Amino acid sequence: MKKIDLDILTTAFAGIETIADPAQVAKLSQDYHTFSPVLAPKLEGKVGDIVVRPANEQEVLKVAAICAKYRVPVTVRGAGTGNYGQCVPLHGGVIVDMTRMHEIVWLKPGVARLEAGVKLAALDKQARGIGWEMRMAPSTYRTATIGGFIAGGSGGIGSIQYGLLSDRGNLLALRVVTLEDEPRIVELRGDDVRKVNHAWGINGIITQLEIPLGPAYPWAEVIITFEDFITAAKFGQALGNADGMIKKLIAIFASPIPQYFHALQEYIPEGVHPAFLMVAESSLESLPGLVQQYGGQITYQKPAQEAGKGTHLAEFTWNHATLHARTVDTSITYLQSMFPADSSLQLVEHMYHYFGDEVMMHLEFLRVNGKVTPGALQLVRYTTEERLNEIIRYHEEQGVQIANPHTYIIEDSGRKVIDSEQLKFKEMVDPYGLMNPGKSKVLQFKITS
Amino acid sequence: MKKIDLDILTTAFAGIETIADPAQVAKLSQDYHTFSPVLAPKLEGKVGDIVVRPANEQEVLKVAAICAKYRVPVTVRGAGTGNYGQCVPLHGGVIVDMTRMHEIVWLKPGVARLEAGVKLAALDKQARGIGWEMRMAPSTYRTATIGGFIAGGSGGIGSIQYGLLSDRGNLLALRVVTLEDEPRIVELRGDDVRKVNHAWGINGIITQLEIPLGPAYPWAEVIITFEDFITAAKFGQALGNADGMIKKLIAIFASPIPQYFHALQEYIPEGVHPAFLMVAESSLESLPGLVQQYGGQITYQKPAQEAGKGTHLAEFTWNHATLHARTVDTSITYLQSMFPADSSLQLVEHMYHYFGDEVMMHLEFLRVNGKVTPGALQLVRYTTEERLNEIIRYHEEQGVQIANPHTYIIEDSGRKVIDSEQLKFKEMVDPYGLMNPGKSKVLQFKITS
Repeated sequence: MKKIDLDILTTAFAGIETIADPAQVAKLSQDYHTFSPVLAPKLEGKVGDIVVRPANEQEVLKVAAICAKYRVPVTVRGAGTGNYGQCVPLHGGVIVDMTRMHEIVWLKPGVARLEAGVKLAALDKQARGIGWEMRMAPSTYRTATIGGFIAGGSGGIGSIQYGLLSDRGNLLALRVVTLEDEPRIVELRGDDVRKVNHAWGINGIITQLEIPLGPAYPWAEVIITFEDFITAAKFGQALGNADGMIKKLIAIFASPIPQYFHALQEYIPEGVHPAFLMVAESSLESLPGLVQQYGGQITYQKPAQEAGKGTHLAEFTWNHATLHARTVDTSITYLQSMFPADSSLQLVEHMYHYFGDEVMMHLEFLRVNGKVTPGALQLVRYTTEERLNEIIRYHEEQGVQIANPHTYIIEDSGRKVIDSEQLKFKEMVDPYGLMNPGKSKVLQFKITS
Repeated sequence: MKKIDLDILTTAFAGIETIADPAQVAKLSQDYHTFSPVLAPKLEGKVGDIVVRPANEQEVLKVAAICAKYRVPVTVRGAGTGNYGQCVPLHGGVIVDMTRMHEIVWLKPGVARLEAGVKLAALDKQARGIGWEMRMAPSTYRTATIGGFIAGGSGGIGSIQYGLLSDRGNLLALRVVTLEDEPRIVELRGDDVRKVNHAWGINGIITQLEIPLGPAYPWAEVIITFEDFITAAKFGQALGNADGMIKKLIAIFASPIPQYFHALQEYIPEGVHPAFLMVAESSLESLPGLVQQYGGQITYQKPAQEAGKGTHLAEFTWNHATLHARTVDTSITYLQSMFPADSSLQLVEHMYHYFGDEVMMHLEFLRVNGKVTPGALQLVRYTTEERLNEIIRYHEEQGVQIANPHTYIIEDSGRKVIDSEQLKFKEMVDPYGLMNPGKSKVLQFKITS
C-alpha cells in the first residue's frame, strides 16, 4: 500500500465535500466498538486521513476512481452506530461518509427504494404516512442509516415477526459502486443481494437499497413484571408463539438490569424481571389472559396514539440496554447469543443460574428459520479478556451460538468463515483490496502480500 | 321435548320473516356433510319444521323467547357451508337463518365489528377499501358467513400467517342471545370469547362479532410443480419457515389430485406434484431462488393486480380440493389431519408411501403454536366405513392428530371432550338444552333425561 499523499487526494476530490480537520476526521473514524473493553484498546488511535462526503452516485463513482487510482484504503460509514469497529479504518485512508445521500428514491405500499444514507427514523416517518414502516430496525434507529444497517446489522425490533435481515425476502435489491480502475455501478436483485448483505461494508460502496416494508400497525408499549426470571422468559416464548397476536418486540430482562433504566424505575420494582413489549393495539385486549396465565403484572401501558411521545420502550432494548447499563457502569460489556429454538428454554435457564450476576440475562425473542427463538444480549461484568473468552467458550460448548462482538475480524465473529459467494464478489468489486483492509484473515493475507 | 305445534310457532313469529315451504325448509336443513359417506346416511331426512329469518337482534331475542317458551329445538345457520352437519337439525324444530343480519357494524384499520350473517367475501371487499382484509378464511369464503366460520371453522387461507381461529387474538369479541325464558344479550371479550368460539353453534345465538384484520397485501398467485411429492412438501415447509417472505397460502398436492382441477390442467402436467401459493407481491422476487433450491418449476403466476379476475387458486385449496375431486368422483371423501411440527416431514413421507393412492396427500401448511406445521386434508378413496376408521386409527397411532369429519358428535371429532368452560357457559345460555340437541354425548344425556 502506498503512503497516502493528502495533497494529491484533496486536489483530486475537488468539487466534492471533504473534511480534513483532524479532530473531525478522528470523530468520523469512530463507532460504538467502545462497548467492548477488548476492542477499545485494539482500535485506539485508528483514524482515517480524510473524510469525503459524496452528495450523489456520480460523486461516489469519482471518489472510487480516485481511491483505486492511488490505491488508498476506503472505509465507508453511515451514522457509525455499529459495535464491531465496522467504521474504524484499520489502515487510515479515505472515509466515505454516506450521510449526505439521504434521498428516499421512491416509496410505494410495501416497498421502498432508498439512498444508503437515509436515516431509519426518517424512512419510517415517511412510510407511516402511507401505512407502512420498516420491517425491523436496530435500537439505534433514530440515527442509524439503512446502508449501515444492511452492511453490519442482523436484525432488531421487528425480527420477532420477520426474522433476520439476511432472510430471503428482507432485502430486495441493492446497488454498489465498485473500486475498480473504472468503477462501475452493480445492481443486485433476488438471491444475489446476499453477495453484499451483512458483508461488513467491504463489498463495494452501497449507494442504493430496495427493502420491503411491513404494515404500520398502531403499536402499544407494555411493561409486564414477573417475580421469577424463567417465568418471564417463558411468557416471552408463549407470546412469541401466539400466532394470533401481532407483536414487534419481546424483550425480557433479568434483575438487576432494569435498575440501569432510570426513566422506567417507577414501573419496575426492585428485584422483579420485566418483559418489554410492542404489541399491535388490536392484540392488546388478548394480552391480560396470557399475562395472568404466567402470573405477571402489567405495570405500564402506553397506547399507540401516544407512540411519538415520552419514553419509547424500544430505546431500552437490543443493544441500547447495554448503552444504558454502561452509562451507569462502564465496566459492563455484553455478549450476542442465539439460543437453540426450544420452547422449554432449558439452556437459557441453565446459563441464567450458571453465571448468576456475572452474566445478566437479556433476551430478545426473534424468528429464526420459522421458529420463535431466544436471542440474547447478555450484560457481562467484565474482569479480564481471558475470563470473557472463557464465558464465550462455555456458551459455545453448551450449544449457544455466539456472534462475538469483541473482535473486528470477520472470521472471529459470528460467521466464522466468509461466504464463498461474498468472497468472489469482493474480488470482483474490490480487486485491489482497498475496502478497510485488515477486517478479514483471508483478505488480509492478500492485501499485505 | 314437546311435540312441535307449527301453528302456534307461526303465530308467535308474526312480524318476523319465516319459511314454511317444506322443500325450502329441507334445503335450509342441509350443509356439506355429504362430503362424508358416513354422515350422509346418518343425517338423511333430518329436517327442521320451520325457518325463521331475523332481521336484527331484537327479532333474535323474540325468536329465542318463543323457542324457550315452547321448548323447541333451535338450529342456527349461516350459509350452510360446513362439513359436519353443524346446520342439520337432529331433532327438527326451528332453523334460525342468520343471513339477513349482514351489516358491517363498523370497520376501522385492523378491526371489524360484524353481524353474524356478514359474508366473508363482502367483508373483505369493504375492508380492502381501507387496506385490510380477513386474517384467514375458508375456501368457501365467497358464500360463508362470519358467524358460521367462528362457530364451526378452525382456520384456512391465511393460517400460515395467523394460526388457528381459536388462537388468542384472532377473535376479539362476540355477542350471543341466550335461550333462557327471558333471553339476554351476552357480550364476551378477551379470553372469554373461548366460551363460544368453535362451539358448533350451540352456545347461544351469535349475533355480532369483532375480529382483527390483517393488512391487505397485494397477493400474487403461483403454481410450482415438482417431480417428487416429498420435495414439493419440503419446499412448502421451507417457504413456511422463510420469515422474510409474506405468504397467505401454501398448499401441496400429491399427484393425481391435480387431475381433478380441470381449470388448471395446462399448468400441471400429469404426474407432477404442485404447490399452490399466495405470496405478497413484494416477496415474489425472492421466490425463484427458493424454487431453484428445491428443483421446482414455476408454471403459473398471476400478479396481484389481476387478483379479482379469472381463476382464483384458493378455490382449489383447503376443503375445496375435496369439492373438486368429488365433482369428478363421488366415491372420494377426505380426512382432516394435523401432522406434528417437524421440518423433516418424516411422518408425512411415511403416510404418503404407506397408503399410496388410497389416501392422496393434500397438505395445507399453517402455524400451530408458533411453528409452521403441515395440516392435511387427504383425499380418501372410500370403500367401507370400517376401512375409513382403520385409516383414521392408523394415523392416530402414528401420532397424526385427526379431526374426524365423519361424525356429527362433538366428542368424536377433533376435540374429544367439550371444554369445561364451554360446557358451563352452555348450561347458562341454553338451560333447556334446545340448541341442536344430539350433537354432544354429555348434553344428549341431559336433554333426553
